Amino acid sequence: MTTTTVPAPLGEEAARLDADDPLAHLRERFLLPEGLVYLDGNSLGPLPAAVPPVLTDAVHRQWGADLIRSWNTHGWWDAPLRVGDAVGRLIGAAPGQTVAGDSTSVQLFTALTAAAALRPGRPLLVTDPGHFPTDRYLAESVAGREGLEVRRVSPPDLEAFLAAEGDRVAVVSYSPVDYRTGELYDMAALTGAAHRAGALVLWDLCHAAGAFPLRVDDLGVDLAVGCGYKFLSGGPGAPAFLYVARRHHGDLVTPLTGWTGHADPFAMAADYTPAPGIARARIGTPPVLSLLALEAALTAFEGVDLAEVRKKSLSLTGLFLRCADELLAPLGFEAVTPSDPARRGSQAALRHPHAYGLVQALADQGVIADMRAPDLLRFGVNALYTTHRDMVTAAVRLRDVVRTAAYDPAPQPTGRVV
Amino acid sequence: MTTTTVPAPLGEEAARLDADDPLAHLRERFLLPEGLVYLDGNSLGPLPAAVPPVLTDAVHRQWGADLIRSWNTHGWWDAPLRVGDAVGRLIGAAPGQTVAGDSTSVQLFTALTAAAALRPGRPLLVTDPGHFPTDRYLAESVAGREGLEVRRVSPPDLEAFLAAEGDRVAVVSYSPVDYRTGELYDMAALTGAAHRAGALVLWDLCHAAGAFPLRVDDLGVDLAVGCGYKFLSGGPGAPAFLYVARRHHGDLVTPLTGWTGHADPFAMAADYTPAPGIARARIGTPPVLSLLALEAALTAFEGVDLAEVRKKSLSLTGLFLRCADELLAPLGFEAVTPSDPARRGSQAALRHPHAYGLVQALADQGVIADMRAPDLLRFGVNALYTTHRDMVTAAVRLRDVVRTAAYDPAPQPTGRVV
Repeated sequence: MTTTTVPAPLGEEAARLDADDPLAHLRERFLLPEGLVYLDGNSLGPLPAAVPPVLTDAVHRQWGADLIRSWNTHGWWDAPLRVGDAVGRLIGAAPGQTVAGDSTSVQLFTALTAAAALRPGRPLLVTDPGHFPTDRYLAESVAGREGLEVRRVSPPDLEAFLAAEGDRVAVVSYSPVDYRTGELYDMAALTGAAHRAGALVLWDLCHAAGAFPLRVDDLGVDLAVGCGYKFLSGGPGAPAFLYVARRHHGDLVTPLTGWTGHADPFAMAADYTPAPGIARARIGTPPVLSLLALEAALTAFEGVDLAEVRKKSLSLTGLFLRCADELLAPLGFEAVTPSDPARRGSQAALRHPHAYGLVQALADQGVIADMRAPDLLRFGVNALYTTHRDMVTAAVRLRDVVRTAAYDPAPQPTGRVV
Repeated sequence: MTTTTVPAPLGEEAARLDADDPLAHLRERFLLPEGLVYLDGNSLGPLPAAVPPVLTDAVHRQWGADLIRSWNTHGWWDAPLRVGDAVGRLIGAAPGQTVAGDSTSVQLFTALTAAAALRPGRPLLVTDPGHFPTDRYLAESVAGREGLEVRRVSPPDLEAFLAAEGDRVAVVSYSPVDYRTGELYDMAALTGAAHRAGALVLWDLCHAAGAFPLRVDDLGVDLAVGCGYKFLSGGPGAPAFLYVARRHHGDLVTPLTGWTGHADPFAMAADYTPAPGIARARIGTPPVLSLLALEAALTAFEGVDLAEVRKKSLSLTGLFLRCADELLAPLGFEAVTPSDPARRGSQAALRHPHAYGLVQALADQGVIADMRAPDLLRFGVNALYTTHRDMVTAAVRLRDVVRTAAYDPAPQPTGRVV
C-alpha cells in the first residue's frame, strides 16, 4: 500500500481536538498495543491496566494461598452485589438494585420472565425488530413459555402501537442504541410512553453502560441488563449485570432459583426462600476471577464525569462522520449513523457491500473495527482511550484500502467472528 | 495447643501408603501452600500449576494485544465446546456431547426444562430430598413453570417408587454422591431403573467428575451437569458443564436461546434456529478467561488413570475413617460416610454438634476442611494431591482441638461460607 496521506485540515483538526481533550490522560488506564487504532471497544473493550495485578492477586494469593477461606476474607461471596453496585454507579442506579454475574442472555431470560410476571393479564411482550439477536430470541422463548405473544415494534413506532394496544402490553424491551447503526433512541420518552400504557420497561444497556450518562433511577426504569465486556472493558465474556428497581424487589419472582439467591444459602434449606432485595436475582456460584477482573476494570471510571465522556464521544464520532463524508462517500460508503448528535450512540457505522473484506484489510493496516452482516462496518469509540487522530487514521486507511483495491470482496464466512 | 502426637501405627501406615503411591508425582501439578493440609477440594479445588501461565497469556497476549481477533485466532469462540469435550473425557462422554459454561444452576435449569420436554405427558420430576439445594430449588422452579410436579424420592427408594408411578415420571434428577455424607449411589442401577420406567435420567456430577471414573455414554445417561471448581480445580466459580447424549440432540429444545447457540450466530437472523448438536445448548457470550483457566486446570489429568484415582481416593478416605474410629469416635464424633468402599464417594464426613467451631479451629491448625449445617464436618480428598499423611494429620489435630477444648461451640453465622 502507498503511504497514507492525511488531508491537512482533518489532521490539524484532530490534533487540535486531542490537544484540548480533558480526558486524554485516561488513555493511560488501558494497555493498548502501541500504534494500534482500536475502534472495536463496543465489541470487546481493551485491557485496563488495573486488571492484571488484581487477577494475579486473585489467582496466587486468594485462590492459591488462601483457598476456600477467600469466600469470606477476600469478599468473594459479596462480589456479585459489590460489582453490581459499581456498575450501578455508571447507570444511575442507587446501591442495592444491581447484581453482576452470568451472561446478558441469562440476565435477559430472568428479566423478561420476571417482568411478565409483574404484569399478569397483559399478554404482549414488545421488542425491537432491530434488537440484538439474543434479545429477540429470548423474548420469543420467554413468550412461548409464559403464554405471551411477542410484537416487534420499532422504537419510533412505539407511541402509535401503545395507543392501539398499550393496555395489553406487559413489558417493552429495548436497547437505547441500535447495535448496527449506532442510532440512539430517547430513553426518557420511550420509558414514559411504556409507563403511561401501564407497561414495564426493560432496557438492554450493552451499548450504553459506560458510554454515556444513564439515569435508570431518575427515569423510573423498571429493569435493565447489560454486558461487562464492551464499554466497561471487563474482558472477553465478562459477567453481565441485572438492574431491578427497588420498588419491584418484593414481588420479584425469578425463574432461575439458584442457591446463592436464597435468603439463607448456607442453611441448605429444603425449600427456596428468596433473599430480600436484588440478592434474590443471584443464581449459581459466581465466576469469581471474572468478577474481580470486571471490578478492577471499572476503576478506569474513577473520577470520570460521564457527561465529559459523552461530549468527547460525540466529538469523536462527529469527526469520523465528517471524514466519511469527505473521504469515503465518494468511494461508495454510506453513513448510516445519524449526524444529529442527540440521535447518536458511541459508534459510527458505514454501509458498503464488501464490509467483511474491508474490515479484514483495515486490520492488516493496524485499524481494528468490526462489521455486522451483511454490509455494515462499525467504528466504536470509547472516550476513555480513543483519540481524534484515531478517527482520521481509520478513515484515511479505509480510503486507501479501497483506492488500492487491497481487500477481498468475499462475504463473512459462517462462524467467523468479525 | 500442645504438640501433635501421632499414634505410631497410623503414622507408619500413612508413610507406607504414601511411599507406595503411584500418583504421588501428581501433587506437583498443584500449587499447594507449604505445610497446609487441604481437605476442601470438594468445595474449591486448589490452584493447578498450569493455570497461571495460561491466564497470563490469555490476559496480556490474547486480550491485551490481539484483542477482538482472539475470538478467531486463539480459539475463544470454540472454547465452550473444546473445554466441554475435555470434561467429557473425564466423565466417559464421546466428543460433541458436552458444553462448558455458565453455572451449574443455569445448566440444571436447561437440563431439567429440556428433559421434561423430551418426555411430554409425564407429569413427575423426581429428585432426591437430600439433593444439593440448588438442584432441589431449580426442580421446583422448572416444575412450577412446566406444569409438572416434583416428587422427592431418596435413591434407595427409587425402584419402589417407579414400580408404583414410573409411567408418570419424566425425569429422575440425582447426584451419585450425597454432598453431605459422601455416600455413593449406584449410577448404573438407578439409571437402569429410570430407563425401565421410560423416564430420562439427569445426573449432577459436581461431586463426581474428576473424583472417580464415570461412564455416562456406557450407562446410557441422558443428561448430566457438573461444576468446574471442585475436583476439576478450575477456580472459584469456574464454568459448569452440560452433557446431553447425542440421541437427544435433534429434539433438544433449550429455554435459554442465547445467540451463541444459533445455527449461524453471525448472520444475526431474525429468528432462532438452534445449532446442530450440543452447540445449541450454548447461551450467551462465554466467559473466556474462566474457560481458559478451567481448560488449563484439566491438564492436571493428563495421563492419569481415573481407576487409579479411585483406588487411592478410597485408600485415603478408608484410612481417615480408621483414624476417626480410633481417635475421634471416643470424643463424640460419628462417622456418617459408609465404610463400604462401594458406597463411598471421595469424601468422609463426621457428625459433631460443634461442627462449625471445630472446622474454624482446625483451620487455625493448618487443616482446611469444611462443614455443612448444622453438624457435619466434611473432609474431601483428591487423589491427585492428597496424601495419607494429610488424613492422619487432620484426624490427630481434630482430636487435639477437642481434647484441649480449643474451639468456639457457636453455630455457623448466616451468610458465612464454611
